[in-house]
Amino acid sequence: MELVAVADLLLARREAALRAHPLAVVRGGPDAIIDDATVDLVVIATPPATHHDLAARALRAGKHVLVEKPLVTDPKHGYELARLASESKRHLFVDHTFLFTGAVRKILAYADELGELLYYDAIRTNLGTFQSDTDVLWDLAPHDLSILLSLVRRPPASVSAVGARHGPGDRESMAYLTVRFAGGPLAHIHVNWLSPAKVRRTIVGGARRMLIYDDIEASEKLKVYESPSTSEMDPADDVLRRLVDYRVGDVIAPRLDQTEALRFEIVHIARVLLDGELPISDVALGLRVVEVIDAAHRSIALEGTPVPLEA
Amino acid sequence: MELVAVADLLLARREAALRAHPLAVVRGGPDAIIDDATVDLVVIATPPATHHDLAARALRAGKHVLVEKPLVTDPKHGYELARLASESKRHLFVDHTFLFTGAVRKILAYADELGELLYYDAIRTNLGTFQSDTDVLWDLAPHDLSILLSLVRRPPASVSAVGARHGPGDRESMAYLTVRFAGGPLAHIHVNWLSPAKVRRTIVGGARRMLIYDDIEASEKLKVYESPSTSEMDPADDVLRRLVDYRVGDVIAPRLDQTEALRFEIVHIARVLLDGELPISDVALGLRVVEVIDAAHRSIALEGTPVPLEA
Amino acid sequence: MELVAVADLLLARREAALRAHPLAVVRGGPDAIIDDATVDLVVIATPPATHHDLAARALRAGKHVLVEKPLVTDPKHGYELARLASESKRHLFVDHTFLFTGAVRKILAYADELGELLYYDAIRTNLGTFQSDTDVLWDLAPHDLSILLSLVRRPPASVSAVGARHGPGDRESMAYLTVRFAGGPLAHIHVNWLSPAKVRRTIVGGARRMLIYDDIEASEKLKVYESPSTSEMDPADDVLRRLVDYRVGDVIAPRLDQTEALRFEIVHIARVLLDGELPISDVALGLRVVEVIDAAHRSIALEGTPVPLEA
Amino acid sequence: MELVAVADLLLARREAALRAHPLAVVRGGPDAIIDDATVDLVVIATPPATHHDLAARALRAGKHVLVEKPLVTDPKHGYELARLASESKRHLFVDHTFLFTGAVRKILAYADELGELLYYDAIRTNLGTFQSDTDVLWDLAPHDLSILLSLVRRPPASVSAVGARHGPGDRESMAYLTVRFAGGPLAHIHVNWLSPAKVRRTIVGGARRMLIYDDIEASEKLKVYESPSTSEMDPADDVLRRLVDYRVGDVIAPRLDQTEALRFEIVHIARVLLDGELPISDVALGLRVVEVIDAAHRSIALEGTPVPLEA
Repeated sequence: MELVAVADLLLARREAALRAHPLAVVRGGPDAIIDDATVDLVVIATPPATHHDLAARALRAGKHVLVEKPLVTDPKHGYELARLASESKRHLFVDHTFLFTGAVRKILAYADELGELLYYDAIRTNLGTFQSDTDVLWDLAPHDLSILLSLVRRPPASVSAVGARHGPGDRESMAYLTVRFAGGPLAHIHVNWLSPAKVRRTIVGGARRMLIYDDIEASEKLKVYESPSTSEMDPADDVLRRLVDYRVGDVIAPRLDQTEALRFEIVHIARVLLDGELPISDVALGLRVVEVIDAAHRSIALEGTPVPLEA
Repeated sequence: MELVAVADLLLARREAALRAHPLAVVRGGPDAIIDDATVDLVVIATPPATHHDLAARALRAGKHVLVEKPLVTDPKHGYELARLASESKRHLFVDHTFLFTGAVRKILAYADELGELLYYDAIRTNLGTFQSDTDVLWDLAPHDLSILLSLVRRPPASVSAVGARHGPGDRESMAYLTVRFAGGPLAHIHVNWLSPAKVRRTIVGGARRMLIYDDIEASEKLKVYESPSTSEMDPADDVLRRLVDYRVGDVIAPRLDQTEALRFEIVHIARVLLDGELPISDVALGLRVVEVIDAAHRSIALEGTPVPLEA
Repeated sequence: MELVAVADLLLARREAALRAHPLAVVRGGPDAIIDDATVDLVVIATPPATHHDLAARALRAGKHVLVEKPLVTDPKHGYELARLASESKRHLFVDHTFLFTGAVRKILAYADELGELLYYDAIRTNLGTFQSDTDVLWDLAPHDLSILLSLVRRPPASVSAVGARHGPGDRESMAYLTVRFAGGPLAHIHVNWLSPAKVRRTIVGGARRMLIYDDIEASEKLKVYESPSTSEMDPADDVLRRLVDYRVGDVIAPRLDQTEALRFEIVHIARVLLDGELPISDVALGLRVVEVIDAAHRSIALEGTPVPLEA
Repeated sequence: MELVAVADLLLARREAALRAHPLAVVRGGPDAIIDDATVDLVVIATPPATHHDLAARALRAGKHVLVEKPLVTDPKHGYELARLASESKRHLFVDHTFLFTGAVRKILAYADELGELLYYDAIRTNLGTFQSDTDVLWDLAPHDLSILLSLVRRPPASVSAVGARHGPGDRESMAYLTVRFAGGPLAHIHVNWLSPAKVRRTIVGGARRMLIYDDIEASEKLKVYESPSTSEMDPADDVLRRLVDYRVGDVIAPRLDQTEALRFEIVHIARVLLDGELPISDVALGLRVVEVIDAAHRSIALEGTPVPLEA
């Protein structure tokens, strides 16, 4: 893969791009890229409001596209992009970066060893990064939803959410999302711009194994716990308090691949385009993330009343 | 205060009581206590289903009562007990033990220094203590609700909750509660019997200060963070991402009184009875906790639809 | 095993003993125990200065003895007790309690899987428990030395130590001990009464595996790390900095037996006495601990000059 | 300040330097820099064995010099450089980078509020960075010694050290250093290339306050503990165990300046050169660090026997 052209509205960034890539075409607008027949893949790293238009133009010009998360912020735009990608037989990748980290790839590799998936609980909080052009759901929830939906691999049935607005701009600065799947698991995501401590912690509760993924830890980000299968509990023992042993098995912090996520992602995309590898983060996943967040906003307006999602 | 009499259904416990308190009257049933004119205060430490009947009898006999949490599990029973206590001019205390710990007393002492209360977020999880005669809401949520309601000191407006049932007995083994107050804050409580790690962590988010109370920490259980007042943020700065300094002030772990909670509680109750000190955990608080959990169960049946609470 | 008799100088403790053990003989002095033909094992839980005399009398009377750590504080006294135990064919156990915890028993079980033992590093610190009748070495170092000497199972060759005196009584309140073994490992122990944080952390560095034992952790007290064998490092690669992968293998927190140490110890002693099980903490181990601490004091007087130990 | 010239033996690095600094003179050897009359300050970032020769040439050519730590590895070379700097009236700075971090600058600012300095305990360990041209003392101990000597501001009296060699090249891969000062404090440093966990933790024990500096923590790297003054302890209370309250005061994590250390250092050096600000890390400090490590090596050869340092 080779960098052919760069477009940026800001002069300073164009100058920096030229220094770093002296052989690249550098322009102020996207036309030179979209019209360049030697360009195979267009990377769109612009504000979400521009994704639909830019991605549609690139797809219509026969380019493959990698767009930053969220894919779009209006599901209708997402459906149109999905249709365009399908019609043009081009790939539309969504940059859900966490899917390419060693920790999340290991979580997904454990999917079949967890037993029945009972629940998924994610917290992603931080203090003080208000963004005036978005809210905390569009900013943070795509990370957790992309992991959740890659793990569950079934469409969610409904979304409930509650939120609060504390910062400038009258947009949600904190929210709690509940995502339900037919037959389970119960998934819950807490995103917050107003927490005094940075927390990035996910629990995946399975009937046979549970995982805790703590992205703040410098090492041992992922821990695997054996848990008692509920089926092993004697249903006859229902009068007295059951004292299940707190630690039923060893705890293992598996070795994680340290490859930088963006490097892994780019190599993966090259393999999809050249070798037919299956895409990890395609338009279907990106669109489902958008649908959940869109439904969450509608549920917030209804104070938590569940909003069904179409299959 | 002096221990006068003990009643327990189990012979082994009666024997242990006699060894520890050779001068006490020890019986298999409550009558000897309730009929004993020298008894001033009856402590009820029995399963929740028996609280209503035992407390009612003790109050009718003119005793003060201390009952374990939850006060009752049916709000109607609670209203009746509140009426009985009022009519008999007796105190009905509810043993919300956490309110008597050094950490929670310090949190309540900070109430006026937090600025506008923006949110309250509590997590209380553990693995493996299923109880067949209750569910995770009645077991764990009273702790957090007693702290929340002591801090906010206004009646909650509505409750939304979602839950899931994984263990024996078909009762909730995990739940997420959202408690709304008119004019804020947004409160959220996560209780879980199925977590591989024990977490007891509360964030109190104020506009001027934020607290993190981590009851698992051996020392420094409470940390106080200065936070930026939202009013200090310039609303004009709405084009570019705002980068608020992550740490605006010092973090302080204030010294906490190490007195054992039960010892503090008993001394407090003596002061209420003898010196007219205001009760920290009275029937009004205990009843409100019951109302919230009762509403949470109704919301769970409605998949998270908010259930209003009467003022 | 049955408790036959208790002796204590303090009336209040004798009364408590009587309440807990109504059938026991309770006396102010040790004679009634030592002269009682029905007593098989005498437990000596008195200040270290009294251990020699009491243990000698009990051994001469044909009793087995369990004495609190340290066995004695003068090696000569220890040699005499060892001789008495040998002559009377009685067991003299030393209560090095940590050896009976699930964590330390697991460490000892790993002994043969660590590869060559490279080093042993222990820290045991706390704030504010000055004892006027002892110093920090006699108070804290027996814990770490009993673990170290049980793990290495060879006599140490020499001891260096440095210390400082800050509290009342002009005795060491902090010290660093280096214990050398012929052919390795290098062992180092830091004991401190004056640390603001409680630390109880031991690293066992082996060529194939390393262990970290953190006794402050509520769970996962023991972690097992795979480490690169030094033989796998290419000696030819000596020009550029070697970057060995930080984590060569998984980290495992093995399940630990939660049996209370004292309970395990008492059951173990019963098995030694009744079934001929090999004692875990015998007079030889207790004596070696005393020799190392005695040598450490001499090295401290010489500002760290190493003091050899006789084989 | 402006970058004028760069010298590097490696072509690839010269090319990178040219790309980043298109206007700089870039050469393979140091002569062009040392002979360039427009150069005021020469930065020497080369292996320690070359520091003496390069720094001497630069000083003789009338340049100020900033040299990476350690200044030299032979004290005689250090004395000569100190003399050269003095004679040429030029500054010889040593890049003890940690002195310029927000955390260490805050520690030094606390120096007068700690009360009598009782002890200093530092641990700096890691797994797997063997360097064939140095040992763990020269690699890691300069960091801790530069902090210690900046805090104590008196010449150390003696050094004891023990070490062990486990990696390739037969050089120390772990060592324990004890540094004594006349009248206190007792200082101890543990450096280790073979630890399974990365630890960078320093305790500064003062009679009035204690500090814990944990450089691994993402936030709250520095904590300040109030401690009981030893003078407040009643010397008459010497029979019973004293139970000093574990936490005598609040614990404070003061806000730390987040300026990058190298940026702060360069601005500081500019102020020394232009405004006469006092240098933070001068040749006297760098030389004392070298003397301590040199004495530590001699003590290691003597198995820990203390080696006196000349005043």
